[in-house]
Amino acid sequence: MVDISKSHWTVSDWHEEIENRFASLERGEPFINLNEDDHREFDAIFLGGGAAGRFGASYLRAMGGRPLIIDQWPFLGGSCPHHACVPHHVFSDVAAQLLLERTFSGKLWFQDMKDKQISIMEIIEMFRQGRTGPHAFMNYQSKEQLDLEFVLNDQGTILDSKTVSAAGQIYRARNLVLATGSRPKEFTFDGHDLSGVFEHVSLVDTLDYEPGSTAVVVGGGKTAIEYACFFNATGRRTIVVSRDKPLSMIPDHETRSYLMTQMLEQGMEFISDSELLAVVGDRQGRVKSVRIRSSSGEASIETDFVFLGLGQRPNSEHATTVLGVKADAKGFIEVDSRMHTSVSNVYAVGDVVGFPMEMFKARKGGMYAARNIMGEEAHYHIGEYPDFMHTHYEVCWLGMGEEEARSRYPEVVVLKLPPDNPDGHQIALPAGDRMMLYAMMKPNLSGFQKLVIDGASRRIVGAFHVGSGAKDGFQYLAPMVSRGLTVDELGEMDELFLNPSYFIQLCRLRAGSKVLRGM
Amino acid sequence: MVDISKSHWTVSDWHEEIENRFASLERGEPFINLNEDDHREFDAIFLGGGAAGRFGASYLRAMGGRPLIIDQWPFLGGSCPHHACVPHHVFSDVAAQLLLERTFSGKLWFQDMKDKQISIMEIIEMFRQGRTGPHAFMNYQSKEQLDLEFVLNDQGTILDSKTVSAAGQIYRARNLVLATGSRPKEFTFDGHDLSGVFEHVSLVDTLDYEPGSTAVVVGGGKTAIEYACFFNATGRRTIVVSRDKPLSMIPDHETRSYLMTQMLEQGMEFISDSELLAVVGDRQGRVKSVRIRSSSGEASIETDFVFLGLGQRPNSEHATTVLGVKADAKGFIEVDSRMHTSVSNVYAVGDVVGFPMEMFKARKGGMYAARNIMGEEAHYHIGEYPDFMHTHYEVCWLGMGEEEARSRYPEVVVLKLPPDNPDGHQIALPAGDRMMLYAMMKPNLSGFQKLVIDGASRRIVGAFHVGSGAKDGFQYLAPMVSRGLTVDELGEMDELFLNPSYFIQLCRLRAGSKVLRGM
Repeated sequence: MVDISKSHWTVSDWHEEIENRFASLERGEPFINLNEDDHREFDAIFLGGGAAGRFGASYLRAMGGRPLIIDQWPFLGGSCPHHACVPHHVFSDVAAQLLLERTFSGKLWFQDMKDKQISIMEIIEMFRQGRTGPHAFMNYQSKEQLDLEFVLNDQGTILDSKTVSAAGQIYRARNLVLATGSRPKEFTFDGHDLSGVFEHVSLVDTLDYEPGSTAVVVGGGKTAIEYACFFNATGRRTIVVSRDKPLSMIPDHETRSYLMTQMLEQGMEFISDSELLAVVGDRQGRVKSVRIRSSSGEASIETDFVFLGLGQRPNSEHATTVLGVKADAKGFIEVDSRMHTSVSNVYAVGDVVGFPMEMFKARKGGMYAARNIMGEEAHYHIGEYPDFMHTHYEVCWLGMGEEEARSRYPEVVVLKLPPDNPDGHQIALPAGDRMMLYAMMKPNLSGFQKLVIDGASRRIVGAFHVGSGAKDGFQYLAPMVSRGLTVDELGEMDELFLNPSYFIQLCRLRAGSKVLRGM
Repeated sequence: MVDISKSHWTVSDWHEEIENRFASLERGEPFINLNEDDHREFDAIFLGGGAAGRFGASYLRAMGGRPLIIDQWPFLGGSCPHHACVPHHVFSDVAAQLLLERTFSGKLWFQDMKDKQISIMEIIEMFRQGRTGPHAFMNYQSKEQLDLEFVLNDQGTILDSKTVSAAGQIYRARNLVLATGSRPKEFTFDGHDLSGVFEHVSLVDTLDYEPGSTAVVVGGGKTAIEYACFFNATGRRTIVVSRDKPLSMIPDHETRSYLMTQMLEQGMEFISDSELLAVVGDRQGRVKSVRIRSSSGEASIETDFVFLGLGQRPNSEHATTVLGVKADAKGFIEVDSRMHTSVSNVYAVGDVVGFPMEMFKARKGGMYAARNIMGEEAHYHIGEYPDFMHTHYEVCWLGMGEEEARSRYPEVVVLKLPPDNPDGHQIALPAGDRMMLYAMMKPNLSGFQKLVIDGASRRIVGAFHVGSGAKDGFQYLAPMVSRGLTVDELGEMDELFLNPSYFIQLCRLRAGSKVLRGM
């Protein structure tokens, strides 16, 4: 046990200590940071210091309460910087960069990328080294700036609804907040345990060879597609095997279609309406092929590299067993709008309570749990939210797609770029930062965007963007759209041209008309 | 004269026609698109079909009026896609890409960039070829989607406040809208006319040799810095000579300081408090050096490449001479909040009316002129607006910097990343799309951001972002900030993590406290 309550470690100090913990298999001593001058009972123990637990504890602390975080990892921040959002963004950035380099291979100053296969191992190794930076910063920020108390690097054991043991001590609090997150679903198909079968956690933690020239990705959801685009960008044949049509989470046909066209142009292969039957291994226990069943029968694909993007399951077993908190059939803990479970004084937040498994929901859930624990009656209703994913591009959306809008409203108006025209997508607009070379030299790759409008009320009901740099905007646009943002109000805003989303100026071009027209 | 009123040219058709016009020195016949079935008098002639004229005409058309655009170029859209915003974004994208490639030269899959000088000629040639794409699209959109009538590829001559001749015809309208834009200031220092002295217009139009290893940039404003970063990124010694401190348009000391540090790390040289005395040429009339005067005396710098970023002057002479419209000492036409000049039924919009010379002001000015012409009383007050520029990064800001805020409010709270800490900027956060490899391998380059808050009212009063992808967000954030957006409201929004601006989550970490604290 390392008591750090009297130390002021810098980010560099934390960096070194966390690296040391990971260097040994046993992970060493826990870090304990308790304020011995605070004699109050803890208001809450947050079991898990990921997005939900850390933000919940921070909010509770800011309100004047006393939270304690207990986390199995030697760092705060949870799976996001270690296995999830951060590596995903690293790999998606690599995909975007390699799309650019491959598209302009041998032109201008770009190196020749023909037949060049990029090392996945090296990129993952780079991430493994690099992720300690964010870890170290989270610990620094949590201790020095947010005044959080914590026990890190040891799994807490729930004794009862107010008591948790960790690092050889027993901690009591008025409340318990379960923030234990989720993990990739386990599978039991033949060959699931062969070396060469990964999901996003095991990929970054255990990959120890350079994958060959073919990657098989199983699944059609966000994670599957994001990783598939990354593997494709490295120069590997990439085959996506999925039951459903890929990209079905994007609620607009035309946006999906633009993305599919681009992925196919990059050589990606999609076998949908299909399922993985088995992974077949060689004598050394390494993957040598997969067997799949699709509408055209059974087939075998040679590969030494299989990635499963098949969803998450909650880390709820310990809590449901010890405390008897109610969970649904999949194990997700049930909570009310105050984030309270079926057991008195026990709250749950983050992935362990189910979908959407997004950062804002985890962090805001933690905040709402904190407010209720501190005596406020505060209800969290997730409501409408913006969403995004990566292919080789950033893809953002909010609200409804054109199809749903047309089923709901008699007059739907669509403003989009490129518009319908005889040259299709061979148009240099839209284009914004990171898309300019495409606009100049390969315009069909420079992006796609679309606003869906209820013509009668003139309100924006959906927005879609493929390209780069629109994610921040969608965050701020979403609450305005929820409150009824109109074409006229959008057309009055001040665009920063070349803006990634051309929504403001497209609205302005049409807003003069009492009867809105699409374009 | 090519009458295209009965034709439906595709974007490709326009592309070919515009290229043909530029292929010959004389620029060929004008394009005429008039609707002979519309027998109404024109409501307005827009002299100039750039951002201001084209958007004004579109709005007027959408309102049911009849506008006519007359423009000297064979395309609509004006200087932005030809000389200004579009090439600037292309070059800034190149700078961002080269910063990445140079930073990771020889690592992962990156090519070795050591001592590699990139051709400026090739990049400019690429832009010259590529810009016809946006031009063609503008013409397509204006004719086929916006139903605009126009005379292109011929300079209009104002005869009186209601009459303009162009392409051998005389056109009359109820009103005239001057949208003639601006051009780089002319200079008369010794050597200003030598071959090798450029501003942003002549650079893209006339550069015909590969600049040597040293670029001298004169000026400290947006254009000067943006082009200087581009020249630097190509691998040239780049010296910025300016009277004022560079980046003074960014109203926050710490943000400027982060940017200066990064530019200096890239080897850029700044000689401020200095002025250009003369450019010295060789016998062939080509630049061989510049003479400058700075606080340390006079000096000479050898170079064959000088870029002037010294501001714009209005194209107002024709209108002031013929119509007698009032202009200020610099020639900018004076307008009231209805965009009306001193002469009845004559309006003016865009760069020709002065600062800020931004797209939103041009386009919205056009829109307000249109509304007034169509009988509405509509006043355009520019008010607070978000702003941006490029270095090797995208830089966005709105509101006031920390210094001004502290002079106005007794309790100013700052939320920033990286925060003040013993490791300085060697922190992997913030990081978002396009910044991930920096975050992992070179964290001091992954960006900087800052929110400035009035602690008493909890309102956001300033926001600053260095990195990538925040431009869209600043557009939408700005009107919310103007309406009094608080830390609490921002903390309730749904971030799309890893979002470029971490404003939402930083606010949430502190919002629980009645007395806000910085971090």
